[in-house]
Amino acid sequence: MIYTITLNPSIDYVMFTQQMTVGELNRTTRTEKYAGGKGINVSRLLKTLEIDSTATGYIGGFTGRFILDELEKYDIKSQFITLDRDTRINVKIKSENETEINASGPIVNESQCKQLLDQINILTPNDLVVVSGSSAKGHGKTLYKEIAKLCNEKQIPFIIDAEKELATQTFEYKPLLYKPNIHELEAMFDTTFTSDEDIISHARKIIDQGVQTVIVSMGEDGALLITDNEVYKALTPTGEVINTVGAGDSTVAGFIYAREHQYNHLKTLKYAVASGSATAFSSDLAQKDEVLKLINEIKVQKLS
Amino acid sequence: MIYTITLNPSIDYVMFTQQMTVGELNRTTRTEKYAGGKGINVSRLLKTLEIDSTATGYIGGFTGRFILDELEKYDIKSQFITLDRDTRINVKIKSENETEINASGPIVNESQCKQLLDQINILTPNDLVVVSGSSAKGHGKTLYKEIAKLCNEKQIPFIIDAEKELATQTFEYKPLLYKPNIHELEAMFDTTFTSDEDIISHARKIIDQGVQTVIVSMGEDGALLITDNEVYKALTPTGEVINTVGAGDSTVAGFIYAREHQYNHLKTLKYAVASGSATAFSSDLAQKDEVLKLINEIKVQKLS
Repeated sequence: MIYTITLNPSIDYVMFTQQMTVGELNRTTRTEKYAGGKGINVSRLLKTLEIDSTATGYIGGFTGRFILDELEKYDIKSQFITLDRDTRINVKIKSENETEINASGPIVNESQCKQLLDQINILTPNDLVVVSGSSAKGHGKTLYKEIAKLCNEKQIPFIIDAEKELATQTFEYKPLLYKPNIHELEAMFDTTFTSDEDIISHARKIIDQGVQTVIVSMGEDGALLITDNEVYKALTPTGEVINTVGAGDSTVAGFIYAREHQYNHLKTLKYAVASGSATAFSSDLAQKDEVLKLINEIKVQKLS
Repeated sequence: MIYTITLNPSIDYVMFTQQMTVGELNRTTRTEKYAGGKGINVSRLLKTLEIDSTATGYIGGFTGRFILDELEKYDIKSQFITLDRDTRINVKIKSENETEINASGPIVNESQCKQLLDQINILTPNDLVVVSGSSAKGHGKTLYKEIAKLCNEKQIPFIIDAEKELATQTFEYKPLLYKPNIHELEAMFDTTFTSDEDIISHARKIIDQGVQTVIVSMGEDGALLITDNEVYKALTPTGEVINTVGAGDSTVAGFIYAREHQYNHLKTLKYAVASGSATAFSSDLAQKDEVLKLINEIKVQKLS
């Protein structure tokens, strides 16, 4: 079974307004609510690709109940650990610009961290763990490393998709995949890339630390898949970018889809990029037919 | 029994941020959630004054469930009619300024309007109906008038506290109380008041339309109680205004408290102003001891 872990999920509350003025009373034209969280997105995209997964992490209160209900609607299994405090609500205000207000979310304690590790402790090398997004407050800060360590000890393959501080602490435990976008990779090395060679050589430094595969998404410049001895480059298909939220999570789901079908690296990169692009071209996460439609449009070449 | 009607309640989601910039990602330092809605506030303040009431109106979804849970915590009876769509979430961003984003809320249909009127239809002249705040979308627009008409036919006393368009349509049905603040009264007559006499003469025009009592709150300039043949003025007690949200609703609750105790007009105005001021001096709605502490500080004089 594939387990997606979302330590700090959210309700994403999207408020459409004609104008947004600080210091005043603004009114919405309409609102939408989504179950937010990178691991949850991975589970949702896997579901449309007809791959079952179990969503886990931490959830609390009436807002957490909303997320569980949404997952049930999508027919996604969930195994969240319950917190006393409400899961956060993040607000996205869409007027002329997009303004976001993110809440920090509830704190997890030591015993709740242990509960999550206990869930992983019974998994086997036939399972797969995907850890995505921001950590929980409190003891959650070190949880990424502990999850990675446990997966490594038990030979459970795991994927990491998180910001610099959280990701790097897991590299020595040999994640199957680390998936930064170009800006995240630049931030990791505090530099600006000027060429593909530059990106590849920095990705190799991550490979050297233990990571098995790095996929770097570069927006309209395509994507690179780098292993210890191979490099592939995909060109992004043409299309109108509508929504980049969840595109990275879809890329991860595409990678997992390819792995489940035992595709080679070249085909894996195709599915990863098709999934990410299909979501970027949709208003919500992509559907399976949208992903499959893009597959043939994606050119992948082996660089080395 | 006292029935407070909130047609379009809300969760008030308060987000504290150090800065709030449009077009950027802002992060909260903390958040709070409240069961919002003017009728609900009236019920809450009545509760602290040890007067039971039943909160009714429309509620829906997981957000509605939050409000019902909150009312249960306050030990307030509720009898809301359930809608398919979620009760709205209003966002209040507290940084240097206060920015509000109000959602419009779910639509009510004809049959749901009838359900509310059916609730009122079984009441008697010994009950009291309080209609406060904004109307629901859809058929809710005319509901204020229908409630008022029904109350009038069945001789059920009712109080109206709503904006111009909603309030005026009820005046001919002889509400027991209409409670505008000075700005709402100015808006009703599209004018600016320059003296108490000016306010009183305009309030009399409302009395002439059928309203039995008008209380006009004037912030730090005090409040006026006007009937067809009497006028009383209260001076506002001194204190630091912390939060004006719910102050008007507390004034209504103070009026009801005085009515339950069969106080005269002079004492009624004292309790109304003490309740409103006590809430303005608190971070949330006032507690009973805070109201009672102010009673002796409030000077009321009969103007005519």
